[in-house]
Amino acid sequence: MASILPASNTSLRSDRNTYVGKSFVHVKNPYLDSMDEDVLYHLDLGTKTHNLPEMFGDVKFVCVGGSPNRMKAFALFMHKELRLEDSEEDIKDICAGTDRYCMYKIGPVLSISHGMGIPSISIMLHELIKLLYHARCSDVTIIRIGTSGGIGIAPGSVVITDEAVDSFFKPRFEQVILDNIVTRSTELDKELAEELFNCSKEISNFPTLIGHTMCTYDFYEGQGRLDGALCSFSREKGLDYLKRAYNAGVRNIEMESTVFAAMCRLCGLKAAVVCVTLLNRLECDQINAPHDVLVEYQKRPQLLISKFIKQRLGLRDQTS
Amino acid sequence: MASILPASNTSLRSDRNTYVGKSFVHVKNPYLDSMDEDVLYHLDLGTKTHNLPEMFGDVKFVCVGGSPNRMKAFALFMHKELRLEDSEEDIKDICAGTDRYCMYKIGPVLSISHGMGIPSISIMLHELIKLLYHARCSDVTIIRIGTSGGIGIAPGSVVITDEAVDSFFKPRFEQVILDNIVTRSTELDKELAEELFNCSKEISNFPTLIGHTMCTYDFYEGQGRLDGALCSFSREKGLDYLKRAYNAGVRNIEMESTVFAAMCRLCGLKAAVVCVTLLNRLECDQINAPHDVLVEYQKRPQLLISKFIKQRLGLRDQTS
Repeated sequence: MASILPASNTSLRSDRNTYVGKSFVHVKNPYLDSMDEDVLYHLDLGTKTHNLPEMFGDVKFVCVGGSPNRMKAFALFMHKELRLEDSEEDIKDICAGTDRYCMYKIGPVLSISHGMGIPSISIMLHELIKLLYHARCSDVTIIRIGTSGGIGIAPGSVVITDEAVDSFFKPRFEQVILDNIVTRSTELDKELAEELFNCSKEISNFPTLIGHTMCTYDFYEGQGRLDGALCSFSREKGLDYLKRAYNAGVRNIEMESTVFAAMCRLCGLKAAVVCVTLLNRLECDQINAPHDVLVEYQKRPQLLISKFIKQRLGLRDQTS
Repeated sequence: MASILPASNTSLRSDRNTYVGKSFVHVKNPYLDSMDEDVLYHLDLGTKTHNLPEMFGDVKFVCVGGSPNRMKAFALFMHKELRLEDSEEDIKDICAGTDRYCMYKIGPVLSISHGMGIPSISIMLHELIKLLYHARCSDVTIIRIGTSGGIGIAPGSVVITDEAVDSFFKPRFEQVILDNIVTRSTELDKELAEELFNCSKEISNFPTLIGHTMCTYDFYEGQGRLDGALCSFSREKGLDYLKRAYNAGVRNIEMESTVFAAMCRLCGLKAAVVCVTLLNRLECDQINAPHDVLVEYQKRPQLLISKFIKQRLGLRDQTS
């Protein structure tokens, strides 16, 4: 696989967090270094079975999203955009031994699926962060590119998250550790959000805004939908909730951003969330735009992130 | 597709819950019947695009599990076991238009994947329950067949859940509805659990027990693992938590059972949870049994459910 950037895995383990000018991905677990082997079970990778520094040491950008097909499409798109020398057929699912997640590497870019919901992305993030740590990666930017329901904005708008909030509009993630509840900050990297927003201005007809993103545990009752198998509130109560969310600064709703922000922040990854909205929840509950319209919407975060990565790598942009 | 049971979709909508001797799958949503169209977005099915009663009206058994590959394998296995006339090649993914879930129908048996974690299975269950409702299905038994971590029992043991409990060992599921928390019962069908347990006795070398199943939102910190990217507690604290769980009657840990029990109970589905344990968490955190051993373990719930379904259908058993 052709590599644009040289592997930066020459520093020793002991000084990985102090090496001048480099910010290494770190874990917050005193037990990990004493383990004889670390099996990343849900990725079908491990420290004894794979040479992780060689495979992943040059990774600088990690893009994650719910759908496996979409993350494969993003990998193929990045391959084209980065004009790498290897052929498209070389882009293989690195996690092919498991069907829990899929993973593709395109030069310094890793594209990974995470399924739906906080627990599913959390398993992936634990193992991804360990992977980046074992591979001695530094200065890694991680971006979630996803779909979401918009609130009070036109379908197709791209929302760059400034703050991930929970169902109570609070910027926090409550993590159950054993039988204790620990509250974690969901702050995202403000400079990165600004950089992405500036990037979006260079693409024509590309409605983009910065706003709060609400993260829920449920797609139906938890997001005020009237079309689930269960619904115990009135149309008015549901709409009132969404309007209160809007007034609290929420512009879109999805199901992974709080834990994503909390975990990446704790482990030295600069993180952003970029989601397109598929509908305006103040107007409807069901996603029923035509298939080709939805497909085009879902490409928007990919287009923005591709532009951003090419700028960072100093590559000339040919797409817009 | 060959059908073992006649379709039971002749009753009228108005009397679906009162029809003598039949228990129809129902929704608890006063808005659903007034909808012009119901798009089951994450299943890529809908009431206007598909004839759901014709496609699914004869379904009597629904089996759900996390992994798409495993649920396909279960479908192929059931096809062999039920000795249906159609060919194996006819078993196609009904949700092929989406990569969120996969679904296979084998006579009266539906096999569906649900991904990992409460939010992921909850989206699938909302849409599955609506599907069964629109299809006018009656007397449906639903079983989750999964993998889990055991507590104090040998790896490879099959646990039939009598009670799904949360991280605090309580038999409840806390559902966030708008910004309220509603507590729901996670009671499962006791007779069904007994019936499954009796079934297991007829299979030789098949260690099975009935016990509580703990359902967590997280695989690492929430299950007392020392091998995640984050770990803030001591080895002793982690082990103490697992031992307290054992003393509260918990025999295995997974990530979907509470919401599964709660939702099925509310909608008239007799539900069971049957999970094999891949390791004993009192001894280790990592799943590192050899691949072929894990593959054999994962077939155990499938074997039990196949035997159960054949008994219910009055088919002679040829496998054990």
